[in-house]
Amino acid sequence: MTIGIYGLGRFGLFWAGKMASLGRVVGYNRTPRRFPPSIELVPLDGLSECDVVFICAAISAIPQVAKDLSAVLRPGTLVMDTCSVKEFPLASLVRYLPEQIDVIGTHPMFGPDSADSSLHDLPMVVTPTRGSDSLVQEWADRFSSLGMRVMVMSPEDHDREAARTQGITHFIGRLLASLDLKPSPMGTLGFKKIFEVMEQTCNDPWQLFLDLQQYNPHTKEMREQMVGKFDELIQVLSGLSDNSTHDDGLTEK
Amino acid sequence: MTIGIYGLGRFGLFWAGKMASLGRVVGYNRTPRRFPPSIELVPLDGLSECDVVFICAAISAIPQVAKDLSAVLRPGTLVMDTCSVKEFPLASLVRYLPEQIDVIGTHPMFGPDSADSSLHDLPMVVTPTRGSDSLVQEWADRFSSLGMRVMVMSPEDHDREAARTQGITHFIGRLLASLDLKPSPMGTLGFKKIFEVMEQTCNDPWQLFLDLQQYNPHTKEMREQMVGKFDELIQVLSGLSDNSTHDDGLTEK
Repeated sequence: MTIGIYGLGRFGLFWAGKMASLGRVVGYNRTPRRFPPSIELVPLDGLSECDVVFICAAISAIPQVAKDLSAVLRPGTLVMDTCSVKEFPLASLVRYLPEQIDVIGTHPMFGPDSADSSLHDLPMVVTPTRGSDSLVQEWADRFSSLGMRVMVMSPEDHDREAARTQGITHFIGRLLASLDLKPSPMGTLGFKKIFEVMEQTCNDPWQLFLDLQQYNPHTKEMREQMVGKFDELIQVLSGLSDNSTHDDGLTEK
Repeated sequence: MTIGIYGLGRFGLFWAGKMASLGRVVGYNRTPRRFPPSIELVPLDGLSECDVVFICAAISAIPQVAKDLSAVLRPGTLVMDTCSVKEFPLASLVRYLPEQIDVIGTHPMFGPDSADSSLHDLPMVVTPTRGSDSLVQEWADRFSSLGMRVMVMSPEDHDREAARTQGITHFIGRLLASLDLKPSPMGTLGFKKIFEVMEQTCNDPWQLFLDLQQYNPHTKEMREQMVGKFDELIQVLSGLSDNSTHDDGLTEK
């Protein structure tokens, strides 16, 4: 089996490494630059020899990637995206790729910062989109064989849940980063975790953060809820009396 | 040595257990209720037999606790508070306790949720306030002997740093709790940490959260910075074009 990787950014190179145990891996990147010698580079039309192509590009780039691929792929090729949002990119792939190209959505919910070498128990969402159920099962089994914990669900269910997990996590991570937090010897266990959230999310490209918020139709609702709760909390704290007018109430700690 | 604990709430009982290896421990609680048999209860004036009294009461209660203690303690007794804020409670203790009572501030930056049995390397802030340097050193050594990582600093330095560590952590924890987050099988490693921050902070009393924000003079500035950055982030995301008008730009992931 020949596995193509479209997009050799930080995640694409990571994914290429993981797929190497399943077959021969070739990679294409729009912008030529130096890559590790471990990856076999091909031009765009070199992807025509692939049985399966993983797209490791930004969510916003998927429509153009789909158009590029539609010009070179053979009928019967399977295309899988790896985007952190599922409804939008899969709609683009179905729209722009010819009928004879099968499409399965995936969201590996881990990356170079959170995966160890085994991928043991790491969450992998698979969203059947176009093609046979048996093809979905075949790939679910392959991902499982690499250690991943495969969850098959619809793109809609994925996006709704992701808005309240990954969407919130990345929002908080970016908020923390903007506060210019520094590690502190006084840091409590909770502060250390806060710091880790920041590190986990802010190594990812800023574009991924924006795309997660823009292209997941459910993040808007999540943000509106967060704005409401944030304002409520600030209101409660602003309403506290000045600390010089304590109430002398006795409360054990 | 007889060690008194004023305030047998969740933290007070935890602290009583930790101090038991340093001497005989007696406890007083304003409101009578059932306590574990391991703690020897005394009335308020029973604290007069103590060499040292730890106050484990809410920050807002410290002025009244100081007045209570000033009526019963013998000259030469050492009083230490354990509040998460230092400037305000220590000013109260110095004001209301007689000159002959020594005062040292402490902030054990851990509790029943974050401490293991050894207290190994857990941060313990000590702020010298009234009394000899040798007394401070004696207690710093005792805390170290229990495994704690002792940091001696001024109340002002403590409060400034705590606003940007514990203050932020608890604010984010309460914000997350108000969003009614649920554990998710789709949770990334970052989401798990977000969840842990919530658990770490929201087991503490709501009063502690309010007191941390109200009685630390530096949290206001921290919150103002957070409001500014939060609004900026929301503005950036609100300004993103609708997801149907993507730019087709190509970016590797």
